[in-house]
Amino acid sequence: MTKTTAPRSVPTTVANSTSEPTLKIIPLGGLHEIGKNTCVFEINDEILLLDAGLAFPTASMHGVQIVLPDLTYLRENRHRIKGMIVTHGHEDHIGGIPFHLRQLDIPVIYGPRLAMSLLRGKMEEAGVAHRTEIRTVGPRDIVRVGNSFFVEFIRNTHSIADSFTVALHTPAGLVIHTGDFKFDHTPIDGEHFDLARLAEHGEKGVLCLMSDSTNAEIPGFTPSEAAVVPNLDRVFAQAAGRLIVTTFASSVHRVNIILQLAQKHGRVVTVLGRSMLNVIAQARTLGYVRCEDSLLQPLHAIRHLPDDRVVILTTGSQGEPLSALTRIANKEHKDLQIREGDTVVFSANPIPGNTIAVVNTIDKLMQQGAKVIYGKDRGIHVSGHGCQEDHKLMLALTRPKFFIPIHGEHRMLVKHSETAMSMGIPRDNMVIVDNGDVIELTPTRLGTAGRVKAGIELVDNSREGVVDSRVLKERQQLAADGVVTVATSISDQGRLVAPPEVMLRGVVTTLDPTQLARQLQNTIAQVLQDHWPSVARSFAPGEAPDVDWAGLQTEMETALRRLLRRELKSNPLLIFLLQPVTARGQVGLTASTEGDSDNGTKGRTRRRRTTADPEVASVGF
Amino acid sequence: MTKTTAPRSVPTTVANSTSEPTLKIIPLGGLHEIGKNTCVFEINDEILLLDAGLAFPTASMHGVQIVLPDLTYLRENRHRIKGMIVTHGHEDHIGGIPFHLRQLDIPVIYGPRLAMSLLRGKMEEAGVAHRTEIRTVGPRDIVRVGNSFFVEFIRNTHSIADSFTVALHTPAGLVIHTGDFKFDHTPIDGEHFDLARLAEHGEKGVLCLMSDSTNAEIPGFTPSEAAVVPNLDRVFAQAAGRLIVTTFASSVHRVNIILQLAQKHGRVVTVLGRSMLNVIAQARTLGYVRCEDSLLQPLHAIRHLPDDRVVILTTGSQGEPLSALTRIANKEHKDLQIREGDTVVFSANPIPGNTIAVVNTIDKLMQQGAKVIYGKDRGIHVSGHGCQEDHKLMLALTRPKFFIPIHGEHRMLVKHSETAMSMGIPRDNMVIVDNGDVIELTPTRLGTAGRVKAGIELVDNSREGVVDSRVLKERQQLAADGVVTVATSISDQGRLVAPPEVMLRGVVTTLDPTQLARQLQNTIAQVLQDHWPSVARSFAPGEAPDVDWAGLQTEMETALRRLLRRELKSNPLLIFLLQPVTARGQVGLTASTEGDSDNGTKGRTRRRRTTADPEVASVGF
Repeated sequence: MTKTTAPRSVPTTVANSTSEPTLKIIPLGGLHEIGKNTCVFEINDEILLLDAGLAFPTASMHGVQIVLPDLTYLRENRHRIKGMIVTHGHEDHIGGIPFHLRQLDIPVIYGPRLAMSLLRGKMEEAGVAHRTEIRTVGPRDIVRVGNSFFVEFIRNTHSIADSFTVALHTPAGLVIHTGDFKFDHTPIDGEHFDLARLAEHGEKGVLCLMSDSTNAEIPGFTPSEAAVVPNLDRVFAQAAGRLIVTTFASSVHRVNIILQLAQKHGRVVTVLGRSMLNVIAQARTLGYVRCEDSLLQPLHAIRHLPDDRVVILTTGSQGEPLSALTRIANKEHKDLQIREGDTVVFSANPIPGNTIAVVNTIDKLMQQGAKVIYGKDRGIHVSGHGCQEDHKLMLALTRPKFFIPIHGEHRMLVKHSETAMSMGIPRDNMVIVDNGDVIELTPTRLGTAGRVKAGIELVDNSREGVVDSRVLKERQQLAADGVVTVATSISDQGRLVAPPEVMLRGVVTTLDPTQLARQLQNTIAQVLQDHWPSVARSFAPGEAPDVDWAGLQTEMETALRRLLRRELKSNPLLIFLLQPVTARGQVGLTASTEGDSDNGTKGRTRRRRTTADPEVASVGF
Repeated sequence: MTKTTAPRSVPTTVANSTSEPTLKIIPLGGLHEIGKNTCVFEINDEILLLDAGLAFPTASMHGVQIVLPDLTYLRENRHRIKGMIVTHGHEDHIGGIPFHLRQLDIPVIYGPRLAMSLLRGKMEEAGVAHRTEIRTVGPRDIVRVGNSFFVEFIRNTHSIADSFTVALHTPAGLVIHTGDFKFDHTPIDGEHFDLARLAEHGEKGVLCLMSDSTNAEIPGFTPSEAAVVPNLDRVFAQAAGRLIVTTFASSVHRVNIILQLAQKHGRVVTVLGRSMLNVIAQARTLGYVRCEDSLLQPLHAIRHLPDDRVVILTTGSQGEPLSALTRIANKEHKDLQIREGDTVVFSANPIPGNTIAVVNTIDKLMQQGAKVIYGKDRGIHVSGHGCQEDHKLMLALTRPKFFIPIHGEHRMLVKHSETAMSMGIPRDNMVIVDNGDVIELTPTRLGTAGRVKAGIELVDNSREGVVDSRVLKERQQLAADGVVTVATSISDQGRLVAPPEVMLRGVVTTLDPTQLARQLQNTIAQVLQDHWPSVARSFAPGEAPDVDWAGLQTEMETALRRLLRRELKSNPLLIFLLQPVTARGQVGLTASTEGDSDNGTKGRTRRRRTTADPEVASVGF
């Protein structure tokens, strides 16, 4: 077998470089990042998808609500997609599916009951429920996708209920994809990690392990979810007034713990926040959240209760601007205000990037008199992802020949690979890959062979439009330096018809604005004087000249930009509207409401002209 | 004595509410935040300033470089300012001084040698070196400021060399302001915390302690700076290739440690980054950084050296976008590229808010083949601020009657007050205050009495202009939703002179842009039709009508905004240019370059009109 040295280009399909059965694995998201986990498996011209998540925008992605992987490769190969499997119901694993369904044909999606229930809601909301068939699976179920993939679902333990590790039986061999996991030997729901099945596969022979790297930097084992119970119990016991508890809506085990503690301490629970209400409703219907109906009460029903009979379970653990808890902290929640004696519990750690939003929320709650319980040393939160010892146990059970660390930023993948090396897996038997890399796996070899197009698509606040890179760049420029609008009208005799209009928005300057406007106007006049002879080429007296308006516009924009950079010491977006005015016939001015605007394309070489009006001179476009 | 219940208004001077000598303490920055520490002390109509720092912008402060406190109160009371004292040379304590000096008269500034040296450079750069007199002080120096303040400088230990706690001897009593501190009993420079002097004051009687709360949430003592030496030594011993070390430029002790380890391990040191070069140069001149000249080499001089003879000491420990290390990580540094075998050491923890920038930098360095050493568990960084046990020791030594936690976000102030209560200080003997609160301190009483104007001033990237709240709001809107420009010309006969021009920038829409432009145009035409009769009030045939252009503009803007919100489901900034066109006299169009632009004020009721040109019809403004 020879090593493929395919160029780092964008093949539509990747040529098979060997006569052995070759499984191609193409991660489109989830590597060198936490989020939007999306993986493509290909063999015998058939494509199987595993998870389709979303990510959240960084601070510089202005006006972006969610981030998705670039799906170009899948669009180009949509006819080969045989189905999708889903490991569990977190947003970074299922949140992208409605967007996939708008663009791709996915005949069938298999996944656990809770995830499929949450997914169905998302699909209905997005109007794509008819675009695929949803089938739920249980532990040890094996489903066939296409002719080449047999997928076995193996119960694992994670922060959401009903989560799976999957074993992909393929012609190339057995691949185990852990999904998200930790080893929780005392799970809240009694659903143990199916170690037996993992070990059995390990004994028979696992060709390749793809394993969750989220906590690869952290030594030791991740504590069981059960570890938070005594600590939260103490918080419940000590709270004299109302208890306001926030956690991730999807942390079904944590929600169960909180409900049980409320019951134990004689408190009723009011749930706030759309996602929390949604997850609890669906999880209750399916039996993943269990409590008596009377335990859950709407907000208006708890008004008359003593403070120490009340728990408010709310979204907002990450300081999300629109969440219920953030609105309470900002005194913007219409039905709930903090008062002296309230205890607020953050049963979640801030995700990096959210730290400042979270501590600001904590500060505001404290300033209004709440006692706030937060921080890693309180034992009121544990991660849903395994640490280094969990990773070792996974490697020890599955004993894979090849290893691919997944689900993590680059340094986590590196740390996870070091853990695997410490377990005896040779460096040459693992790859650290990026989104878009094409991994080739055969019974004897693991390597990469080229790349497909990969990147991100930014979905805007309407959840429909795509913020392309040009728009994003414009927004970054607008945010940093504002916008300067200059509008001018120039006659086809080469004269300024009126003083140019100048407007600044979001621009900082110590200059006198009138002075700056004057400079901009002078610049326009100067360019006009310098360039008119060359742009009005076929000028003949008494005739409408053939003016290169686009050329004139470009010259003026260049000069104006230079002036703005020099005078403002910044680089605002320049919007320059040049309105050519054609004088013909007799007196006056024409009115025309015919549309001819072109939204954004600034250079225009041809302009439609209106005919002269007997009443007024025509003003052409 | 009666409790003052002054309104939360903005008194220019605060009335004395007692016949006892009353010291007013007015923090203008540094409370409910980390940064821009700025404190005002007032007694007998004299003002003493303590530190004047800056803060850095949050993500939503677009185009802002630094954040300063609102200085309205000091501007209004500038004649009473007798001088300023400075505790140490960190940016959040001296970075605001040049901006103060532009607006205020500060006759004299006292401070430690290193801080004064750094300050002098900043003042020269800002062109305000002539605006005050700088005097350096040493340990146990006492200076008089005005007639009422005697300030004693007490050596403390902190991450920058030459740092002081101050004792303010005032007619009301003795106030100790800790500055920034930890108790480091094995300081790198051998300059011990002057515990004796603190204890002596404690024995004689301290009226009030104002103490640094940065690490109030963390139990235990902060380790000595010396604790990093063996861990960094091990890193130096194990590095096979080049060593690239980053830390805070101002961490003079850390810089000394790194230089000494370089010497020990036979490496020369190249310093990268403007602030690092500046601090090291000044600290060497003053003797705070000590090394042989030959140890420091410019980048070009180390090219021929073996990799294991080289240390590169650089800025960028916080992932700052323009820093040397960030540019190296982004492959944008013209003289230095990462190569296999390099070891990069982050001898600093990320400040919350910088985490993502730092881990992105780490990932990029690793992807280029560097081994990166980072993280809290490596023992290669310690804080310069004391933790809970340091706080207790400070309280135990000074034994104050009253206590004010300072230098921290709200929850840190609360934790620090809890620590003080655990030491026996009654809750009524402390206040948790916000920037702008006026604290009144007498020999028998600590309380608050009203507020002065407090807030923030945002300085833009040019370091000269101020980003006011209107500009910031515009930028936030521009960033989130972009800008729509609509320009239209309307004749004083109430007709559209040409189809309105529409341009979108930074706007996301799934609509056909031509269609949207048509809708905007129709809206303008509709408003014109509906409102012309009412805005063109004194219309008489054959005469120039008296048109309420501002009223028409407002109507059109309202209608256009409503349309945009409905169609785009977002709220872009609307720039609407309405150009009234007056047809008078004979044929053609006039040219005029006279400026009449008003930059930003959109509603205009009066417009200057140009006289008719024999060649063209006049177009008035």
